[in-house]
Amino acid sequence: MQRYFIMHPLKEKKVNIIGEDVHHIIRVMRFKKGDKIICNDPEGNASICVITNITKDMVEAEAVEPLLENREMPVRVTIAQGLPKGDKLDLIIQKGTELGACGFIPVQMERSVVQWDAKKSAKKLARLQKIAKEASEQCHRNKIPEIYQMMNLKQLVETSEAFDVKLFAYEEEAKVNVYSSLGDILMHVNLEDKVLLCIGPEGGFSEKEVNELKESGFLPVRLGPRILRAETAPIYALSAISYHFEELHNKGVRSDG
Amino acid sequence: MQRYFIMHPLKEKKVNIIGEDVHHIIRVMRFKKGDKIICNDPEGNASICVITNITKDMVEAEAVEPLLENREMPVRVTIAQGLPKGDKLDLIIQKGTELGACGFIPVQMERSVVQWDAKKSAKKLARLQKIAKEASEQCHRNKIPEIYQMMNLKQLVETSEAFDVKLFAYEEEAKVNVYSSLGDILMHVNLEDKVLLCIGPEGGFSEKEVNELKESGFLPVRLGPRILRAETAPIYALSAISYHFEELHNKGVRSDG
Repeated sequence: MQRYFIMHPLKEKKVNIIGEDVHHIIRVMRFKKGDKIICNDPEGNASICVITNITKDMVEAEAVEPLLENREMPVRVTIAQGLPKGDKLDLIIQKGTELGACGFIPVQMERSVVQWDAKKSAKKLARLQKIAKEASEQCHRNKIPEIYQMMNLKQLVETSEAFDVKLFAYEEEAKVNVYSSLGDILMHVNLEDKVLLCIGPEGGFSEKEVNELKESGFLPVRLGPRILRAETAPIYALSAISYHFEELHNKGVRSDG
Repeated sequence: MQRYFIMHPLKEKKVNIIGEDVHHIIRVMRFKKGDKIICNDPEGNASICVITNITKDMVEAEAVEPLLENREMPVRVTIAQGLPKGDKLDLIIQKGTELGACGFIPVQMERSVVQWDAKKSAKKLARLQKIAKEASEQCHRNKIPEIYQMMNLKQLVETSEAFDVKLFAYEEEAKVNVYSSLGDILMHVNLEDKVLLCIGPEGGFSEKEVNELKESGFLPVRLGPRILRAETAPIYALSAISYHFEELHNKGVRSDG
């Protein structure tokens, strides 16, 4: 069943869909009154809804059957990504959303080749939000990950105070003989913890950035023994965290079943 | 240090580099006699080598210091991928190589939208081999993953007899209440096992293909609770397998240190 994210709580039985989804419902899916869709509210609640009215600017529906499904990751992982080249951030957001990230923070770092000015930043954020929304619908997420405003490292450090676990993927950890393995670290992460994982751009972190992150309580972590590209590192980390909390000790029976 | 894959064993101290790498050494890196490079042989051995002679068609070098590093995954995972649309197979090979896959088998499946004829197949394989080689150099792999000839499902089933563990990522496993979790399955995989993981194209497997795979001893496996795209599934699986065998119980001390 087609899934749409609505902007108000599902507690009210009446559902209003506005914006681009109206076009999708009318023109792409060609739904009519009486057809069923799934709606997700900002809290992650989902319900089967029956379309009751269609106008040019709004689709009205009624919630008829709450869904107990929960496909959200049991730990809340936010990726702080050093701005990479080209369209790599698009790939990170699309794949990261499928893999269960709960937020993304674009970070201007010393070795980021690209620079976002205010105008570019607004345009980019709108595009990234659209990618996150579409990926959430496609992979049946309950929530759309949050795309933060672009930050510099100082702002990231301030923001990081709201998180329980702060990590940074340090490529040098893949080369040294004694390092923090991701396994060691995840053993000490609890369900519902807010995890912030910082990933460098293509050239990695500068020495100054590494020191600043360490001083602010970020732990360096190795993501396997091979050197990963900037856009592969968050994908590896999210897959590993999903595996650790959703599959490893999972006896193959769904909790929401 | 720049890394090149050579075609002969490193037991002989004399190293010959031919083909496109000669151009890379002379024109891109502008190496001269006396410069050092790392060479990997087909067995996965690596050595620091000193360039001793450069001609238009060949670079000669001498192995001076064997490297004991090993960045290969301790289980040997081959991805059998239903042909996806567009350039998604390029992404799967590039990311899968970084993530430690030891081989890739392109499989023509019922719901594959693209068709490879003989001419297209040869061209595609050459391109995929190039992507695997470059990704191996970039992420410091010891070996280049093998790119198999394209197969149909019958040929895949025959080929699968050489593998210890045969799996297929079954999207329906993410929706049912009792399923095979990847964690359960990896608990029974041993080091050095040859694992074959089959992934469907965008539309998934046909019912006939699911039955054929099951009858041939392939186990269905769930890759987390979210629905993954065709190109995200192999990336998730490889990251999870790397995490399980390379990071989870890893005490943070390198074995080759």
